[in-house]
Amino acid sequence: MGSSTNGVVGCSSTGAVDKGVDFANYFCTYAFLYHQKEMLCDRVRMDAYYNAIFQNKHHFQGKTVLDVGTGSGILAIWSAQAGARKVYAVEATKMSEHARSLVNANNLQDIVEVIEGSMEEVVLPEKVDVIISEWMGYFLLRESMFDSVICARDRWLKPTGVMYPSHARMWVSPIRSSLVDQRKNDYEGAMDDWYGFLEDTKNSYGVDMSVLTRPFSEEQEKYYLQTSLWNNLHPHQVIGTAAVIKEIDCITATVNDILQVTSSFSSTISMEHTRLCGFAGWFDVHFRGRREDPAQQEIELTTAPSSNNGTHWGQQVFLLHPPVHVDEGSNLNVYFSMNRSKENHRLMEVEFDVKISKPSGKILPPIIKKFYIE
Amino acid sequence: MGSSTNGVVGCSSTGAVDKGVDFANYFCTYAFLYHQKEMLCDRVRMDAYYNAIFQNKHHFQGKTVLDVGTGSGILAIWSAQAGARKVYAVEATKMSEHARSLVNANNLQDIVEVIEGSMEEVVLPEKVDVIISEWMGYFLLRESMFDSVICARDRWLKPTGVMYPSHARMWVSPIRSSLVDQRKNDYEGAMDDWYGFLEDTKNSYGVDMSVLTRPFSEEQEKYYLQTSLWNNLHPHQVIGTAAVIKEIDCITATVNDILQVTSSFSSTISMEHTRLCGFAGWFDVHFRGRREDPAQQEIELTTAPSSNNGTHWGQQVFLLHPPVHVDEGSNLNVYFSMNRSKENHRLMEVEFDVKISKPSGKILPPIIKKFYIE
Repeated sequence: MGSSTNGVVGCSSTGAVDKGVDFANYFCTYAFLYHQKEMLCDRVRMDAYYNAIFQNKHHFQGKTVLDVGTGSGILAIWSAQAGARKVYAVEATKMSEHARSLVNANNLQDIVEVIEGSMEEVVLPEKVDVIISEWMGYFLLRESMFDSVICARDRWLKPTGVMYPSHARMWVSPIRSSLVDQRKNDYEGAMDDWYGFLEDTKNSYGVDMSVLTRPFSEEQEKYYLQTSLWNNLHPHQVIGTAAVIKEIDCITATVNDILQVTSSFSSTISMEHTRLCGFAGWFDVHFRGRREDPAQQEIELTTAPSSNNGTHWGQQVFLLHPPVHVDEGSNLNVYFSMNRSKENHRLMEVEFDVKISKPSGKILPPIIKKFYIE
Repeated sequence: MGSSTNGVVGCSSTGAVDKGVDFANYFCTYAFLYHQKEMLCDRVRMDAYYNAIFQNKHHFQGKTVLDVGTGSGILAIWSAQAGARKVYAVEATKMSEHARSLVNANNLQDIVEVIEGSMEEVVLPEKVDVIISEWMGYFLLRESMFDSVICARDRWLKPTGVMYPSHARMWVSPIRSSLVDQRKNDYEGAMDDWYGFLEDTKNSYGVDMSVLTRPFSEEQEKYYLQTSLWNNLHPHQVIGTAAVIKEIDCITATVNDILQVTSSFSSTISMEHTRLCGFAGWFDVHFRGRREDPAQQEIELTTAPSSNNGTHWGQQVFLLHPPVHVDEGSNLNVYFSMNRSKENHRLMEVEFDVKISKPSGKILPPIIKKFYIE
């Protein structure tokens, strides 16, 4: 699931991560059926993988497949139903036991072998023709699970093998959203409350806590204003051109390629008299096969703002305080930078540097904002 | 903070707990000012400790004090203001840095020494006259922080020393609550949804997931029906006599004494024609000093159901499904048992065995229910 562990075998390490801590912080959610069901109920996600597999049976028939992070086992089961000769379904949590009963209940135990363990540690009896995985986190890279897919690819994919999905892209666009007002109000409410608390504590209990005002406000600011939000945006909230800020070819990408994501891009505001309230980040993946062995039917899975095809990923929203009035034709020059958090490599720190030019030619002072994807 | 760690020095171990995992699961919440503020805003809690200290200055004047788990530093500051000669304020998280600035801002740096570290590991220059700590979790023992207070006492309290608080009790009473209907409805809604999901998955995706119905329903049942709830109950919801199920003398208690809590008790229903919807658990602590050196003013801090003196602890509610109709005079013979969870010693597993006798003399079949304090 996208990380190096103390028991790493044969995969480059981005830094030792204690397995117990990784489980307490990350893996444990995936052991719950409720969480698996949530993902299985995402029709856009399910349709994309289902169609990618069954409209490209030539990639599966008689072939060997590795499902990285099989969860409930759904992709492994579909791969077997599409004609795979053998499927290895690797899952780090006890969810693997449920995957195994699901495989048995669907009469696929001769084809699908469920293996409990981390991708970095398991040993397979052979290399595979296909690696399939649903590894994408919010804004693609949150959770850093792709590290484990890269590890699997480097260890177990045949030189002729195919990645499912084959490509991934990260997108950013300027947006408008009333969330910017809500969060600002929440923050200000928390600070009002704090000042009342300071007074009570001084009067009733004789302790002056005003020295904590600054760290408290920083903590609240980080929580209310600087932490990215999950939201399912409507396309009407996208107020300017969206830009691709990262492209990943899953057959060649290295962990180094994804440790840092930086991009300079432009976006033109397409809405008259609106507020730039921040930016939205999302992703898409494609199932194209490989150049020498392409898909017969290319499938796309996108998490872009949509009126009726929202996914459980939503988009990640980075709010700008205060919002900025912009006009149709205003131009944004944006520098985007994303790095892994030092405390937890599965979480991210993001920076947006925004230079706004009005249609008149006037250039506003640069806006530099830091965010946390938690 | 109530646990043995890998670096245990001089304290009996209840089993090795990885420090990193303990931080990820437990300690980390206490590093947030928002969380500290929530506790500092609990007037009942604050008043009790404030009065316990300032109405018993003889215990503090010219004395040495240890504050176990100082958090923001409030108890250490009050101890100094009450005349202590020296206060050691131990805190395992980075909150210690805020405690230190608070001490400095209140001009007590010559008296209060804030030490970042776990109680099991820190080394003090001397033994102390008083150990003060606010260690109580939900239903007293959730979080198992008292382990760390016992460790502190065994290592650092003088033979003549005093514990603040000196005593603690756990209470249980039968209750009525509409939560029992809410949770039941939530559970049934989740199961209805599941069956729809099963059908969709079979029809749209060709996978029969019915083998997961049983584990899914067990998971949902545990979540909705078997996990204790936080609630601030009104005294009107207490429908029968409350019983003390555990008494702790903080000067003599050992970790062994609190590993398991068992009690057989009776409760008589005091409300006519009502439903036994479950049981509530809460606690109280007392500040009585010690027999040879008693408090001048005994203070009580109770978390019993109250119309206007609720605390942030609330009560722990254990719901009975289905609720049972009982009458005034019905008698409950209850066997209560609580043990630490194997996966996480700071969480608990609870069992209630209930035998109901109606006023007519009729005895209902015993009800045996297991619960989780998460």
